[in-house]
This record gives sequence, structure tokens and C-alpha cells, in this order.
Amino acid sequence: MSHNPVTVIKVSSQSRPQKVAGAIAGVIREHGTVPVQAIGAGAVNQMVKASIIAASYLSVDGIEIETRMSFTDVPMDGKGERTAIRFEVYRKATEREELPSG
Amino acid sequence: MSHNPVTVIKVSSQSRPQKVAGAIAGVIREHGTVPVQAIGAGAVNQMVKASIIAASYLSVDGIEIETRMSFTDVPMDGKGERTAIRFEVYRKATEREELPSG
Repeated sequence: MSHNPVTVIKVSSQSRPQKVAGAIAGVIREHGTVPVQAIGAGAVNQMVKASIIAASYLSVDGIEIETRMSFTDVPMDGKGERTAIRFEVYRKATEREELPSG
Repeated sequence: MSHNPVTVIKVSSQSRPQKVAGAIAGVIREHGTVPVQAIGAGAVNQMVKASIIAASYLSVDGIEIETRMSFTDVPMDGKGERTAIRFEVYRKATEREELPSG
């Protein structure tokens, strides 16, 4: 585990879910958790799709994820703030991991 | 727990998140799990908001929930089928519940 803070993955309505899913899966493999953020219905929809696809990518490696959702206020350059949806994606601890490998 | 199958809560882009959240919280309290379904970005956005609000309603009672997301194909009357997003909302088992009360 690195001590660097994990960057928030920002999703827009134009984001490709497969690409976002790849980014989520990559950070989960390295850090075990990743925050993902979307503003607006189109972006939230892409974020949900990306989360589902990321879960399928990671399940191939026996990694299960859990998603916690919350509202968060995001400052917009000089335009006040908007409410975003934040997904906190976590790697679940599995029994398999607690056993020594081999 | 009733033996009746739990009805799928269908969310549209016009659904009020607070109302859907109330329905989710009610079924979770009774059955411990509820499927929620949305088709299209506007509906998915309302479903995500409703899940967050339901989690806050239930946390007041010390109930924690977990959401699993998946794609599902839904037949449309004579118009083929569309891909919906399905949330399976679960009540988490907590240590508190395993202790006898009082």
C-alpha cells in the first residue's frame, strides 16, 4: 500500500464506462479502495455502469468489491457549489485472502 | 419474515427520491432485502439518490445497508428489451444484532 492519497476518479456523462471501470479496477488492485465522483444524471449513470463493469473485471481475480454511496458538495469555479454523488469503492476482505497461499 | 416474494421497486426519472427511499427502508425493515430497478440515466440517478437517503433513514435505527449493482435485461411490451440497472439492497448483519437486547 502506498502512502500517497488516492486521487478521486471524476466521471462525466461523456466518460466511457469500460475505461472508468479499468481505472477503478487498477486503483482497487493497488490501494484496495478508490473514491469516484459524478455530477448530474448522465455522469451518475456512467459511474454506476463503470462500477458494475469494474466488479466483473475484479471478480476474475477473485476480488470482491463493495460500493458505499454518499452526497458531497463540490465547489464550482466561481459558481457556488453543486451536489455530487460519491462512490467509495472498497475491496472486500475474503476468507480466501486470510489463508496462506500455496 | 414473510414468504411472499419481494416486489421489485421500479424507479423512473420522475420518481421522488425521498418517496422511493421510504419504500426501500420499509421493505428492508420487513424483509431485510429489496430489489430496485431503473432504466435510463434519469431513473438511475433517482435510484442512487434514493439509496443514499434510505441508508440515512435506516441508520437512525442502527440498520446498515449494502448495495450490489448489476445489469439486467427487461422485456418492453412488444419493443424488444432494454438493459436496466438493478440494485439489490441488503441489510448488513451487525454485531449489535447478535447480542441479546436488554
